[in-house]
Amino acid sequence: MTELNGIAASPGIAIGTVYVYRDDIPRIPRYRISEEQLETERTRLEEAVARAGSDIEAIQSENGDDLEGDERTILDSHLLMLRDPSFLDSLKHRMEQELLNIEWILSRTVKEMMNKLSTAGDAYLRERTSDILDVAKRILNHLLDRSRPELADLDEEVVLVTHDLMPSDAVAMNKRMVQAIAMDAGGKTSHTAILARSFEIPAVLGLETISRTLSGGEKIIVDGNHGVVIVDPDAATLQRYARLQGEWQEHEVQLMRLNALPAETTDGKLISLKGNIEVPEEVEGVGNHGADGIGLYRSEFLFLGTAQLPSEEQQYRAYYRVLEAMAGKPVTIRTLDVGGDKVSEQIRARDEKNPILGWRAIRVCLSEVEVFRTQLRALLRASVHGQLRIMFPMISGVMELTRAMEILDEVRQELRDQEIPFNEDIPVGIMIEVPSAALTTDILAKKVDFFSIGTNDLIQYTVAVDRGNERVAYLYEPFHPGVLRLIKIVIDSAHAEGISVAMCGEMAGDPVASMVLLGLGLDEFSMSSAGIPEVKRIIRSVSMAEAEELAGNVMEMRSSAEIDREVRTYMQERFALF
Amino acid sequence: MTELNGIAASPGIAIGTVYVYRDDIPRIPRYRISEEQLETERTRLEEAVARAGSDIEAIQSENGDDLEGDERTILDSHLLMLRDPSFLDSLKHRMEQELLNIEWILSRTVKEMMNKLSTAGDAYLRERTSDILDVAKRILNHLLDRSRPELADLDEEVVLVTHDLMPSDAVAMNKRMVQAIAMDAGGKTSHTAILARSFEIPAVLGLETISRTLSGGEKIIVDGNHGVVIVDPDAATLQRYARLQGEWQEHEVQLMRLNALPAETTDGKLISLKGNIEVPEEVEGVGNHGADGIGLYRSEFLFLGTAQLPSEEQQYRAYYRVLEAMAGKPVTIRTLDVGGDKVSEQIRARDEKNPILGWRAIRVCLSEVEVFRTQLRALLRASVHGQLRIMFPMISGVMELTRAMEILDEVRQELRDQEIPFNEDIPVGIMIEVPSAALTTDILAKKVDFFSIGTNDLIQYTVAVDRGNERVAYLYEPFHPGVLRLIKIVIDSAHAEGISVAMCGEMAGDPVASMVLLGLGLDEFSMSSAGIPEVKRIIRSVSMAEAEELAGNVMEMRSSAEIDREVRTYMQERFALF
Repeated sequence: MTELNGIAASPGIAIGTVYVYRDDIPRIPRYRISEEQLETERTRLEEAVARAGSDIEAIQSENGDDLEGDERTILDSHLLMLRDPSFLDSLKHRMEQELLNIEWILSRTVKEMMNKLSTAGDAYLRERTSDILDVAKRILNHLLDRSRPELADLDEEVVLVTHDLMPSDAVAMNKRMVQAIAMDAGGKTSHTAILARSFEIPAVLGLETISRTLSGGEKIIVDGNHGVVIVDPDAATLQRYARLQGEWQEHEVQLMRLNALPAETTDGKLISLKGNIEVPEEVEGVGNHGADGIGLYRSEFLFLGTAQLPSEEQQYRAYYRVLEAMAGKPVTIRTLDVGGDKVSEQIRARDEKNPILGWRAIRVCLSEVEVFRTQLRALLRASVHGQLRIMFPMISGVMELTRAMEILDEVRQELRDQEIPFNEDIPVGIMIEVPSAALTTDILAKKVDFFSIGTNDLIQYTVAVDRGNERVAYLYEPFHPGVLRLIKIVIDSAHAEGISVAMCGEMAGDPVASMVLLGLGLDEFSMSSAGIPEVKRIIRSVSMAEAEELAGNVMEMRSSAEIDREVRTYMQERFALF
Repeated sequence: MTELNGIAASPGIAIGTVYVYRDDIPRIPRYRISEEQLETERTRLEEAVARAGSDIEAIQSENGDDLEGDERTILDSHLLMLRDPSFLDSLKHRMEQELLNIEWILSRTVKEMMNKLSTAGDAYLRERTSDILDVAKRILNHLLDRSRPELADLDEEVVLVTHDLMPSDAVAMNKRMVQAIAMDAGGKTSHTAILARSFEIPAVLGLETISRTLSGGEKIIVDGNHGVVIVDPDAATLQRYARLQGEWQEHEVQLMRLNALPAETTDGKLISLKGNIEVPEEVEGVGNHGADGIGLYRSEFLFLGTAQLPSEEQQYRAYYRVLEAMAGKPVTIRTLDVGGDKVSEQIRARDEKNPILGWRAIRVCLSEVEVFRTQLRALLRASVHGQLRIMFPMISGVMELTRAMEILDEVRQELRDQEIPFNEDIPVGIMIEVPSAALTTDILAKKVDFFSIGTNDLIQYTVAVDRGNERVAYLYEPFHPGVLRLIKIVIDSAHAEGISVAMCGEMAGDPVASMVLLGLGLDEFSMSSAGIPEVKRIIRSVSMAEAEELAGNVMEMRSSAEIDREVRTYMQERFALF
């Protein structure tokens, strides 16, 4: 029996048999070509690209209406990349310069693109490298004349074990036969994680070497609630997990019953629970889990993987679609939050030595003002179709906020002059994710309608740690007393000015933290939709007095270890958390 | 008349004639060599290295006792690098692999080393790239059989304009003939800046293109107080600067008279003013400027540019030497504060995407425990020779501090067991440079004897900005209300526990900030020695009541722009700052 620990990427428990899926790129040949051979190589590339496109179209037509929104977006973005002439032209141009075979040129170019993207400050951007790799593998397979193993042909139930799952494989695979996923690569925001959650397939990612150590046919338990995988379990363990699996399923059924009920404490305080989304297609999941609205709609997806910036019209349609789908429930859209890496031809930055502390988010928008204006125009225009709230990311102080508000006012005036309708009373708020902003929320609260605490970045800056750096990630502690004090400062300052405070970082979706945050006075929790029912269950079971007492005790403690131990034990005993 | 703005790296005003010094590396030839030619290339390398060594020894013997401590250290470190067999072996090995000429191999290797070093989180480490380049240029000049232009031969007074000044050039140059330095490259912590300050030569660095736009012979004004350079000044400007120059010299004379006097406010509060040093040789400058001791002795210099970690004995001697030279005045030695880059063969780290948020300082020491123990043993042993204070860098919370204290206690016990004498009452303190530490200083103050606020990093984390990134450096604001509030929290928590608070970041040496910090209750200012007299003048001119009133007003303000404007005007009017 071997127990492995990874990242709990999609909840649920599965017990099954290992199927190892290998899709490694073989050694890429490298050879010189003559000027005369260039034409042949160009044709080979074009044919391989055309066939890769046909593959994807085949997946689309075979799966038809069965495709979920996320899947459709992924496949569309791959087709877009394959059909982007600048991508092919740059490959050809490089081949002409270097006079090397096209497989080699392609694999080098893709490696460089991936290196570039992998230094992005934003996890979402980093994860997009798998799309590029997916497309490149498809082309390479055709160039090298290899047929790609297909997951569509699975005909018995298995636990899928693999190094990394390309997004198009995830789309094509026969999901009814996949009981769970255990993978070497991947994080919480990877495509695989997002898709697994949307199909409710338990998944443990980031297992590093599992695909190399297993050969297939082993008995395996995947516990997506705790990020644990057990290979060759003994009888007692099997029995224990069979029982846990039953309890989990029962628990899920219970939770779904809460969907129609409000998140109200036993003494009547009403809390707002909302969903975080990245692409418009996730709206359905938000509705299915009893959310009060969307607390964080990341607008970045529109700007990624495109040769050109999205037009005002394209953005308008994307925002409009979500607002309409939410049918009057509030939708908080965050303005562009990209890192200093190249996002499109029009926004470029130099390489940055510390991208997390670099040219990002509102800093980009305040210097690329036209990009910002276009987005604000699209948002204002969409505001007549629902209850829009606009949120600026990464505000560090009053000067940035003032400048962003000035630009918003200019855009409003422009629309008025052009007699284009928009809602004059859109609530405008800011993310609180920079310590200097958290420390001056008394000043900032006078100028906005709401705050949303972005704990992921706030913790990184407060404790001075890049949580993507495995050597120091242990210092990333949501329960660091310094972090909790900052959160308290933010909530108290906001309430003193009569504005509300949301939280949209991962901490907001962690059931262990729910009661402490409730006790500190948080008004709104925004998270991955699937997490909403569990947090709702907790809120509906406690009184504000109990939550405040727990929070008060926690604020007296001196270290994150002490707080973590206390709160975890308390929550486990009180709520039997999974 | 052209006015250029750069970095004010060494104070003073000079008016003179431009001498442009060019020392560019020519195009490095690249050609294949055969296996048979390897031996010839190896010999060429060895001869060039030997000659480069002789050059340096010649500078040492020609200048003899005239060499200042800093200069001696620089030249010694260059000789060390030239004689490091692992450096030559790696060049030879690479040449054998790639079968390319040795000039090419050398220049490529150096470029790679520089890229590596240039991503170091610490400015000090980054600046060390000029030492590597200096040594490489010397070798290349011999390989390419070029004689290197020498600054030792200057025979008339000039203002030196250059792209970058190699440390050994700076050492060799005829300093009596250099009225000022204006340079494309360089920052406040570059060798050129340190040497210019120690020779009291005004310098403006970071001018980017001045060496390319001037040809020599132009009239030039260098204002090292404000980082301004004026080329071809008109008569009125010349007259104005001639007057300013006179006033500055008079001012300097006045300041030196303060050396023997205490830094005491008019109402009798005694403040401690101390020097920051990087190498033991700077102790002399500390004494010359009326410092009360050393507030920050960076121990990194011992660990840099060496193939092996310094032994306990080497460290003991270095610490002992400074403690003895300070003759009973307090010396605060900070334990190893290096970044995640390779420092020596024994401490390595992976490439980090955000080194400033990475594996640094106490994080390195708590994982490379033997390195830490060796340093602590050396420190404890040296403690019998003076008034040592030990300081841990980059503490983020109580858990790291507890662990560091445990190790210190173990080392103390070890020395007791071995009957090695040490001072049992060494004050132990921590740098406050991480927001989470600043926010929990009430907890930390119960466990240490003093705090020292490291504003450079504290500001970077608090405002979430890498100040080395020119695209966002404008956000690096010491007067951000969030930063000032953190400083106030630190000082108030410390005083509530009866411990003292120093500051050792650049803010502590900025005369504009002095009165505000005084008013907030700071007990000790530690800075480059040359800045001490000016801060002392300010402190001796004001009462605590006046300082507290200014600080109180500042704490009511809402933005750094507002605070900066107010304080700058106030200080300018009150103290006629240069």
